[in-house]
Amino acid sequence: MSFREDGDAALDWVAGYFERVRDLPVLTQVEPGEIRAALPPSPPDEPEPFAAVLRDLDDVLLPGLTHWQSPRFFAYFANTGSEPGVLAELVAAGLNQVGILWRTSPALQELEEVTLDWLAQLLGLPEGLHGHIEDTASTATVAALAVARDTRPGRRAVVCSEQAHSVVDKATKLLELELRKAPVDDELRLRPEAIQLDDVCAVVATVGTTGVAAVDPVFAIADRCDADGVWLHVDAAYAGSAAVCPEFRYHFAGWERADSIVVNPHKWLGTPMDCSAFWTRRPEEFRQTFSLVPEYLRSPDEAVNLSEMSIPLGRRFRALKLWAVLRCYGRSGLQAKIRENVRLAALFEEWVRADPEWEVVAPRHFSLVCFRRSGSDEENERLLERVNATGEVFISHARVEDRFVLRLAVGNFRTTEDDVRIAWEVLRREAATA
Amino acid sequence: MSFREDGDAALDWVAGYFERVRDLPVLTQVEPGEIRAALPPSPPDEPEPFAAVLRDLDDVLLPGLTHWQSPRFFAYFANTGSEPGVLAELVAAGLNQVGILWRTSPALQELEEVTLDWLAQLLGLPEGLHGHIEDTASTATVAALAVARDTRPGRRAVVCSEQAHSVVDKATKLLELELRKAPVDDELRLRPEAIQLDDVCAVVATVGTTGVAAVDPVFAIADRCDADGVWLHVDAAYAGSAAVCPEFRYHFAGWERADSIVVNPHKWLGTPMDCSAFWTRRPEEFRQTFSLVPEYLRSPDEAVNLSEMSIPLGRRFRALKLWAVLRCYGRSGLQAKIRENVRLAALFEEWVRADPEWEVVAPRHFSLVCFRRSGSDEENERLLERVNATGEVFISHARVEDRFVLRLAVGNFRTTEDDVRIAWEVLRREAATA
Repeated sequence: MSFREDGDAALDWVAGYFERVRDLPVLTQVEPGEIRAALPPSPPDEPEPFAAVLRDLDDVLLPGLTHWQSPRFFAYFANTGSEPGVLAELVAAGLNQVGILWRTSPALQELEEVTLDWLAQLLGLPEGLHGHIEDTASTATVAALAVARDTRPGRRAVVCSEQAHSVVDKATKLLELELRKAPVDDELRLRPEAIQLDDVCAVVATVGTTGVAAVDPVFAIADRCDADGVWLHVDAAYAGSAAVCPEFRYHFAGWERADSIVVNPHKWLGTPMDCSAFWTRRPEEFRQTFSLVPEYLRSPDEAVNLSEMSIPLGRRFRALKLWAVLRCYGRSGLQAKIRENVRLAALFEEWVRADPEWEVVAPRHFSLVCFRRSGSDEENERLLERVNATGEVFISHARVEDRFVLRLAVGNFRTTEDDVRIAWEVLRREAATA
Repeated sequence: MSFREDGDAALDWVAGYFERVRDLPVLTQVEPGEIRAALPPSPPDEPEPFAAVLRDLDDVLLPGLTHWQSPRFFAYFANTGSEPGVLAELVAAGLNQVGILWRTSPALQELEEVTLDWLAQLLGLPEGLHGHIEDTASTATVAALAVARDTRPGRRAVVCSEQAHSVVDKATKLLELELRKAPVDDELRLRPEAIQLDDVCAVVATVGTTGVAAVDPVFAIADRCDADGVWLHVDAAYAGSAAVCPEFRYHFAGWERADSIVVNPHKWLGTPMDCSAFWTRRPEEFRQTFSLVPEYLRSPDEAVNLSEMSIPLGRRFRALKLWAVLRCYGRSGLQAKIRENVRLAALFEEWVRADPEWEVVAPRHFSLVCFRRSGSDEENERLLERVNATGEVFISHARVEDRFVLRLAVGNFRTTEDDVRIAWEVLRREAATA
């Protein structure tokens, strides 16, 4: 194998992919099992060239990809593997660092801490938070709730809104905590006056819920948590990135009082999967829950090791891609990308509002528009399936106050006004020809 | 930014790194805080070129890296970011898939399942296991023990040997299970007759412990677990890769009876961090513990989603690198790499045995040699520090029957006989000049 030659081919493949991805069907059109059936049932006995891997990437795997990197991907929360982020992943894989103890990779650990400090500054978070990177908000939530539980003995309940992410269900089930879902107001925000904090170790407040990007009133929730000694975890996995723009910061009022915060740069900040930024004001309490340094890992230095802060012992060099993204975009570049995504979502919202056949069903705070066409849930559901079956765009859905609702999430840095216009055209066309 | 130009520079950087890494100091020589101090305290306001990132990689970060990719890295368990694995990571970052539901990336999910089937075949595991990829054995262990707990109500204890990895301590603490460490025999193997399984939901048996690569008698432990209805989890994170060679399979006798097994291709199978292979005979029981599919994620297809098997909801396209490695090495290539690593460890062991000043302190089964020089623990500890301070090689230590012992783990695919010889020379030189 020649690393340079194979590397040129791989790089060329990725560059070509970026150039053509807009024209590929966004949502895969394969059936379950189809990709599996196209792959050999057994591994090769003898080495194959890397070129064969790239060839099968095109021939076998490509039809089975849903193209998250298509600028016409508007489902869930769209993301971007930005150019500097992608190339930093190449470098990180080459370095193949394993962060276990500080000494196993001081640069990994210290860059992770510095980069999280940088990101905290960009988001307007207060000084003095301790930051590290988790794989996903799921794992971050498990970690936060475990620490809340351990530091509040005897309190075994967790409160979140009905609209909170299912990750809270999963984490509380794993930790055998009782989950209490609090009612929401007419904008699907948790109602702080409706929560009861007896026996509660933690409240999860969400800024930008997954369904409709609702914003829980974090400041008022923080008041309640302070009064009752309850851990406040803020889930801003999607929307948190918007705080790079000062004009959106009012949505986050109070998150500076949280005990822990999660924001996913792999969602809306140009960083390839996976990179979930996690901050806490209470790093010592995380060490109480997670620190176990056995003899074979003891080292003479005195540094705190990031593995003492969370579940995994070994961490890869994720900070490198976040660092590359923050540097190659800069504050101004990230603001421009977020603002453009929000502008496009606002534009789409206008189009929906202007058409009497359609309605916007939830307030739009960021880059997610929740809407539906007149007609039944079933009609909207069938419309969604038809739209996605075209392969021209991909949107997803949610259920709001028991109604089936369509979601258009602008989040790819390469999405243009034309791309959003095409989404609107496809929606209207498919609705008209039903 | 030009992706192709920046990409050429990044690729060239990595290729150059592979060429020069043997000559870099293996263990970083920086002090805690030194890298942090060399980085700007705040992110840039304006975009910087990617070339600046590469420049600072050399100027700022490189001194703070412990070079896991050095062929003279013999600490912990040495690993390899092989060429096909590294390039597949580039492609995976470009595709930036997010595996949540099957439909969000059928190719990601089905390739993950197929690749884990391939790997199971290579390791001689039985048919019918369900495989998926976790980030680390830590997370895999949490998942396995959570399922063991959920399926055996009322049983809250976990048994492992004194030599088991600290991950079991961490997982049981997180899950509030009681950990019982069983005594070991004179080869540091769990003694099945010494364990008592009342109230026990799971036994963790290890093939290749972290300290000395001891091999628990899995078959006899499986008998005990079967008789008492106890979950058997086999931790073969390091040594499992050796099972690609039939001549090492006798160490694994009985693992085919396990309820769950973890093997880390990111340790000894050429796959860059992170990639932890996890198999279970009981996928339905994992779904009971981890499946929660909320409305906004429901999709019309009937496929099982890998997110229903473990903690994280979103997964990146890790299977791509494992697939590339299995193809570009093939069974024969992987066997050759493992055999050569083991041959080099055996050679080093011979040299140690032949020198009356040194002794081998634990049986060598795979590519890890545990040894010490005559003299006190303190002398051996100081020797280790001197050896590592040279930067010529990096080895680590363990404590065996309360003695300080040195560990030389051969695990990098690029390590040669010369590299191992240099380790031995440095050890003897530093011992002689103390």
